[in-house]
Amino acid sequence: MTISNPLHIDRADLLIENGTIVTMDAGNRIIPGGAVAVEAGRIKALGPTGQFVQWQIAQILNARGGLILPGLINTHTHAAMALFRGLADDLPLMSWLNDHIFPAESKLDADMVKIGSRLACAEMIRSGTTCFCDMYLFEEAVAEAAGECGMRAVVGEVLYDFPSPNYGVLDNGFEYTRRMMERWAGDPLIKVAVEPHSPYLCKPDLLQRAARLAGEYQAPMVIHLSETQNEVVQIMETYQATPVGHLDQLGILGPNVVACHAVVLTMEDIERLKKNDVKVSHNPESNMKLASGVAPVPDLLAAGICVGLGTDGCASNNNLDLFAEMDTAAKLHKVHRLNPTLMKANAVLRMTTIDAARVLGMDRMIGSIEKGKQADIIVVDTAKPHLTPMYDPISHLVYAVHGSDVVHTVINGRLVMKDRDLLTMDAAQVMADARQQAEMFRGLA
Amino acid sequence: MTISNPLHIDRADLLIENGTIVTMDAGNRIIPGGAVAVEAGRIKALGPTGQFVQWQIAQILNARGGLILPGLINTHTHAAMALFRGLADDLPLMSWLNDHIFPAESKLDADMVKIGSRLACAEMIRSGTTCFCDMYLFEEAVAEAAGECGMRAVVGEVLYDFPSPNYGVLDNGFEYTRRMMERWAGDPLIKVAVEPHSPYLCKPDLLQRAARLAGEYQAPMVIHLSETQNEVVQIMETYQATPVGHLDQLGILGPNVVACHAVVLTMEDIERLKKNDVKVSHNPESNMKLASGVAPVPDLLAAGICVGLGTDGCASNNNLDLFAEMDTAAKLHKVHRLNPTLMKANAVLRMTTIDAARVLGMDRMIGSIEKGKQADIIVVDTAKPHLTPMYDPISHLVYAVHGSDVVHTVINGRLVMKDRDLLTMDAAQVMADARQQAEMFRGLA
Repeated sequence: MTISNPLHIDRADLLIENGTIVTMDAGNRIIPGGAVAVEAGRIKALGPTGQFVQWQIAQILNARGGLILPGLINTHTHAAMALFRGLADDLPLMSWLNDHIFPAESKLDADMVKIGSRLACAEMIRSGTTCFCDMYLFEEAVAEAAGECGMRAVVGEVLYDFPSPNYGVLDNGFEYTRRMMERWAGDPLIKVAVEPHSPYLCKPDLLQRAARLAGEYQAPMVIHLSETQNEVVQIMETYQATPVGHLDQLGILGPNVVACHAVVLTMEDIERLKKNDVKVSHNPESNMKLASGVAPVPDLLAAGICVGLGTDGCASNNNLDLFAEMDTAAKLHKVHRLNPTLMKANAVLRMTTIDAARVLGMDRMIGSIEKGKQADIIVVDTAKPHLTPMYDPISHLVYAVHGSDVVHTVINGRLVMKDRDLLTMDAAQVMADARQQAEMFRGLA
Repeated sequence: MTISNPLHIDRADLLIENGTIVTMDAGNRIIPGGAVAVEAGRIKALGPTGQFVQWQIAQILNARGGLILPGLINTHTHAAMALFRGLADDLPLMSWLNDHIFPAESKLDADMVKIGSRLACAEMIRSGTTCFCDMYLFEEAVAEAAGECGMRAVVGEVLYDFPSPNYGVLDNGFEYTRRMMERWAGDPLIKVAVEPHSPYLCKPDLLQRAARLAGEYQAPMVIHLSETQNEVVQIMETYQATPVGHLDQLGILGPNVVACHAVVLTMEDIERLKKNDVKVSHNPESNMKLASGVAPVPDLLAAGICVGLGTDGCASNNNLDLFAEMDTAAKLHKVHRLNPTLMKANAVLRMTTIDAARVLGMDRMIGSIEKGKQADIIVVDTAKPHLTPMYDPISHLVYAVHGSDVVHTVINGRLVMKDRDLLTMDAAQVMADARQQAEMFRGLA
């Protein structure tokens, strides 16, 4: 190109060079010695590093033989709960919630949620996550924190039958969500979802109203669904249907629905999820720590249902590291089904990249390194004892890489972490603010 | 003391100061703002940092408000298998072993085992492990590598019925083990164990001979035991007893026996293990990845059996990070028994510190920070977003800290890692050697 027409000079804002590109495209292409050119927030070209020698490049990032891959996507979290990590553990669920988490949450305000969300963004960027789907209180503060940190996020104010510490009565909650939809429309990083908490905290009317609002804005609807056996028993008693069956009968299941957890499912539930093209967010570490159960992910995959991984909130994990979550997801189902061939590394890596993007309805925009997509890209340093030698990059990414091995993070074409230094926030200040908040919560523990 | 007698000056080779000391002593004492003084390889004193102001200190290590705790102890690994990490994954056990691992292992020699062991020591030191119990071929090379790296290790040449690539016929294996016993007797770091592979690869005569040799040298006897359902079926068919029952009938179970895995157990097996004070090495991540099953650890603990954690070899994990192993161990049993109160953080931390030391018969020497013990100590940097705020150090150590958060590592009083730099080996050379070896194994994959 440049040879046949010397007047034409290709240019890029950023070139990430000298790495093995794990594209996660439809062909699972891996490009050794590769480079990715970024312009105006998008991926302009990718290929062997040598192909870019004549390009005009504003900034070069050397991957030094490491791995270049799509930024990871966390399909379910409550970011601000980073403030509650380790506040209480190893307790019966009801004691953990009623005696520790709910009292702490009742003290929250928008400023605290912002402090907690910034803390979570710092951890996520430092562990290779470039996009997260959040459900919490004071969600405007989450959107603002994410936007200021340069992170991509799907945000939604939690809606339930009882009064909220944020918006008060339910009508205000719908109004709050609608205002968020309008405020962030067209934003390059923030997308707003409608987020009814669960079938057990939301009456049918709330759920149907939420579905209508999501339809009006073509937005995702995110909901906790079938997380525990207790929930299933309660919904069966109230509605004579499983949680999934109940939502299906209400007519609100569809391709925009993100069912978080989906642990306790019947075969009929799985058929209903598939029939409606519902997406599932699988949160293995939280399900393990809270003893909720093991989601039937191999069955969901066999049915052709799209599954992404999520960490859930920090209080029940206790981290936001999707590399750790992949490792656990790959191993948990093997031992649960006594079959070491389940949850192969490539399928698991899809659950934090291209399939996670599909879960959020964003797979045409992010989730793989392909020309034209938004440039959400991370670089993993593999020149470390625990990643040496490397026979298979995919195996390493799932079973051996840890979040702390991520050295550079690019979101929407913007470098937000370089050599592990956060460029979009003052990490020391973020931690100092969090420590100050913690003094108040400590008294409640 | 120094006040009442100004002529008496206390001194230390090393003072680790300004950290929260997690002692793991019998009272689970935690000392905020603490310091540990080390002299001649041993812990000389510990207490508030202020208590040491008048001491003469050769070297000061500032923990900068982080955590000071006993070095972690890996009760079961095959260190040199670090060379095979990611060579093959997600396969049926027999195909993984016969088509990938065994062909690679058949090419091993002492030099390769030394290269692989150095690589493993680098990873272990960098993730806070200061002592490991190893079983492999060419174990002299493992002992030499560990000693050169300044790591503490329990080493034992694997013994089985068929000829070994190292020593040939079995008689030579016993001779090799005996020579190791003599060579390393009195070594400050290396201890030799007798290590028959398993009841399914060792005839009764081999097992009894191994037990006699271990008795003669008062050494641990390390053996894979009841790892899979297949093993139990095979031993039942051959000996009309479970693997544990078989060893008990042979009269070789005792307090020096380390039973690795112990996944498939009857209640009677557990009674036999308890009766003989057998120690158990629990390897949850390997058991998950190979789909062996979930060991009944809550039952073992309820029976009063001492359990330590192990990673097993890198090919079935795929890391040697005991912080990750603790997190998994704590969560796996909660979900397996649907009880979130099982495997509380403090009990799990014991499994990599004081209880792991007991498993190896070394609890009077290491495993806690107490006056008079050998100084195997690590420092964890907690000034990081994912460890902020900190309500409970024990919760953080099990559920949130990762190996890469360890900044300083001291073994037997010697600083082997400072600010994450390895001081006892050339990490770049270790990785270069491993990459070169990998080229040969790659062809076999």
